[in-house]
Amino acid sequence: VRIDLNADLGESFGAYSIGDDAALMPSITSANIACGAHAGDPTVMRRTVQLARDSGVEIGAHPGFPDLAGFGRRAMMLSPTEIEDLVLYQLAALAGIARAEGAAVHHLKAHGALYTMAAADVSVATAVARAAHGFDPSLIVFGLAGSPTLTAVRDSGLRVAAEGFADRAYAPDGALASRQLPGAVLTDPAQVLERALRMLEHRQVVATDGSVLPLEVDTICIHGDTPGAAALASSLRAGLERAGVQVRPVSA
Amino acid sequence: VRIDLNADLGESFGAYSIGDDAALMPSITSANIACGAHAGDPTVMRRTVQLARDSGVEIGAHPGFPDLAGFGRRAMMLSPTEIEDLVLYQLAALAGIARAEGAAVHHLKAHGALYTMAAADVSVATAVARAAHGFDPSLIVFGLAGSPTLTAVRDSGLRVAAEGFADRAYAPDGALASRQLPGAVLTDPAQVLERALRMLEHRQVVATDGSVLPLEVDTICIHGDTPGAAALASSLRAGLERAGVQVRPVSA
Amino acid sequence: VRIDLNADLGESFGAYSIGDDAALMPSITSANIACGAHAGDPTVMRRTVQLARDSGVEIGAHPGFPDLAGFGRRAMMLSPTEIEDLVLYQLAALAGIARAEGAAVHHLKAHGALYTMAAADVSVATAVARAAHGFDPSLIVFGLAGSPTLTAVRDSGLRVAAEGFADRAYAPDGALASRQLPGAVLTDPAQVLERALRMLEHRQVVATDGSVLPLEVDTICIHGDTPGAAALASSLRAGLERAGVQVRPVSA
Amino acid sequence: VRIDLNADLGESFGAYSIGDDAALMPSITSANIACGAHAGDPTVMRRTVQLARDSGVEIGAHPGFPDLAGFGRRAMMLSPTEIEDLVLYQLAALAGIARAEGAAVHHLKAHGALYTMAAADVSVATAVARAAHGFDPSLIVFGLAGSPTLTAVRDSGLRVAAEGFADRAYAPDGALASRQLPGAVLTDPAQVLERALRMLEHRQVVATDGSVLPLEVDTICIHGDTPGAAALASSLRAGLERAGVQVRPVSA
Repeated sequence: VRIDLNADLGESFGAYSIGDDAALMPSITSANIACGAHAGDPTVMRRTVQLARDSGVEIGAHPGFPDLAGFGRRAMMLSPTEIEDLVLYQLAALAGIARAEGAAVHHLKAHGALYTMAAADVSVATAVARAAHGFDPSLIVFGLAGSPTLTAVRDSGLRVAAEGFADRAYAPDGALASRQLPGAVLTDPAQVLERALRMLEHRQVVATDGSVLPLEVDTICIHGDTPGAAALASSLRAGLERAGVQVRPVSA
Repeated sequence: VRIDLNADLGESFGAYSIGDDAALMPSITSANIACGAHAGDPTVMRRTVQLARDSGVEIGAHPGFPDLAGFGRRAMMLSPTEIEDLVLYQLAALAGIARAEGAAVHHLKAHGALYTMAAADVSVATAVARAAHGFDPSLIVFGLAGSPTLTAVRDSGLRVAAEGFADRAYAPDGALASRQLPGAVLTDPAQVLERALRMLEHRQVVATDGSVLPLEVDTICIHGDTPGAAALASSLRAGLERAGVQVRPVSA
Repeated sequence: VRIDLNADLGESFGAYSIGDDAALMPSITSANIACGAHAGDPTVMRRTVQLARDSGVEIGAHPGFPDLAGFGRRAMMLSPTEIEDLVLYQLAALAGIARAEGAAVHHLKAHGALYTMAAADVSVATAVARAAHGFDPSLIVFGLAGSPTLTAVRDSGLRVAAEGFADRAYAPDGALASRQLPGAVLTDPAQVLERALRMLEHRQVVATDGSVLPLEVDTICIHGDTPGAAALASSLRAGLERAGVQVRPVSA
Repeated sequence: VRIDLNADLGESFGAYSIGDDAALMPSITSANIACGAHAGDPTVMRRTVQLARDSGVEIGAHPGFPDLAGFGRRAMMLSPTEIEDLVLYQLAALAGIARAEGAAVHHLKAHGALYTMAAADVSVATAVARAAHGFDPSLIVFGLAGSPTLTAVRDSGLRVAAEGFADRAYAPDGALASRQLPGAVLTDPAQVLERALRMLEHRQVVATDGSVLPLEVDTICIHGDTPGAAALASSLRAGLERAGVQVRPVSA
């Protein structure tokens, strides 16, 4: 049994700081780095790329809607062309910064509302996929495990990694429960580890109504912007390794 | 005698349109395409890249200060690191869009206040050069002909193209006269052609006080955002070719 | 029979120019001025306020989503609180500029996607109304004639003006036909006048499927951002006055 | 002896949090609230206005350059007209939010680079003053104590409050030492109190070279964005009151 652990990083902006990226790096194998639209700025991106490179962590682009005030979490009704161009722009900007630092982009994971829309709407998913494919067909696209749109991305010729969330509640239909709901974000290390192991060993997750959903995951997301995130990540990785799980990038 | 003709393009933004890029393309050999900071957006960038590619015009990045409201014409006091990262970000974004369109970035020309500051301040010029070199050491950097900072860019290992302005007045110190001053922008085709030919044949330009300045240029800029810009460009190119000048990209 | 004629103005931004506001002013009685979010900047706002004041045209706030790249035409999923605060901010900014120019804000009309959402979703309409009422309960709110949400605005204690569109096609359900559809925007002066007169004299509009919808309007919108907008506006006003319609602000 | 204590607040933005405004309120008498350009957003502004109002703290506008990425600390070369309109816009937006909350704006203090430029350049100072005067001639403008430009503001008919910094080092010419320099920001409570008392009792401050500068202050600024800011503010106020200083708003 093997798994990739990923986190969304580089989400600081100018004088504003979010997340403790340096503390999280040792626990993860893939870093999704914000690209200056929903969060991040060129200097933050560069620093985060350096950090990931020096930590031996795979670098991914983490594009989002151009809505800093909403942190990319508010849906915006863009056309597929606008989404494709916007994702291409952000992906390319990060890839160029990586190149200047002797590194390369290995995967792409959409952020926030764009991620959610891509999981539910095939036109959004294929717009994201077109951007990735046009830039580099060897990129791996991370998407919501169980989402019907993952197939569309795969059909476009890209490698796909199905993503599970060990620290987020699942609705009975397999979507993530809204962050607005109580209990949507889990913070108890034992519970998070147990959910991760159930995903890996039994290919299941328990939804908010108690029903058991099948779930096959290639990568598990660890949130970095909550207090205690680094400790939670560290304990999750240690727990997984104790249980005999190999923690490695999806491309390894 | 040979010369490159360049223009700043792709400066529309969303519903806002500036310049008639399509009309200008046949007259130029290098297109400097705005990169989404002082002007341009991902969709405009892509459309402009397609236009340049289809017209056989070399594609250049045209990065500027992140000040859409000021169109990048207002100086901003950024640190050299901030400038380097900002230019790298914009350059990489454009290069990625070009790559998705089967094209490549061939040069870089800073925009507006960033261009002016780079011509006067070696720390700004070297920050821009570091960004270009880090991304691709084969890029050609366009800079103000006669500016002392061009040497610094050349010393960083990059090829440099000295740029003259046939439609802008020169101050006695070799800087461009401020756009605020009357007569700073020339629109008479005969006068613009005469100035261009004087640059090419006599390596000179006449400054606002009548003094004659030595000026060696590899490329001449044609402004695209003034009414009649396309006709002016077309008449300049025709006039140059009639006079036996070869109009070709700097890298040709 | 009397009617107000309104137009959306002040939508230029920095170096970007949209619409010929000065040419439109003589034809209208209410100017909806963009407030710096979807379009407009402080200097454009001030110039437009001066123009309206000097033309004897009533000044209205025209707040929109904070999406300059999309010109406020792309829906954004903001919470009612975010919408209320955003509208209050924009309204207050315009009102302060008006105050510095010896003028006052008389009405409010939401822009683009915010207008459309307010017409369809009572939670959006009441968020806009709360913003207006909190700032100045004597403001008049312009909203889509026939929209069920106008009642909610009126119930909040504000005066309401029902708006019709003489140059836009109506869907059979009374909504405006999408701008993406062919024929959605009318430009023939005779047709626009005929539709306006039918609204005023028969309280009807013909929808895209030929069905006749009842429509009671207090104000008719004239678009200012299309070529020939000023001539269209002028001919509409002249035609209305020839037909005996009094063209006056809603508050007159 | 009496003094006003002011702090810059409301500088959070969307998901980004800076400063502990609630903890600072009990120690201050004037709150300078960011207005959505260099920091702050409409919802943050409203929350901060409520907090100040409920704490009995005077509300001031804290306008800055439109440079969120630089937190308004990078100089931008705007024209006096652009500065006036930008300040008017931000001031009016905050005043409207205050009005909706049953409060009013009592003073204005420019932020960051705009503050520094206004202290050194009379054209900037008078642009800020024109904005304040045009909106409300009864506003009090806070400016750097000892700055020659304060006179220009006073001459425009506005009341002025001279501001001292007990937690910032002064250059020998009376300007604030750059934040880039070591020791530019003081954090030792005893030292901050001692400097404040010296300002109030002896009308002096000791510059970085040991020279003693005359300094007459109406208000002392407390920074809110440093760790321990609230404790420092609380100990300063307590120390001042122990020494018999009356801590009251400048207008009291």
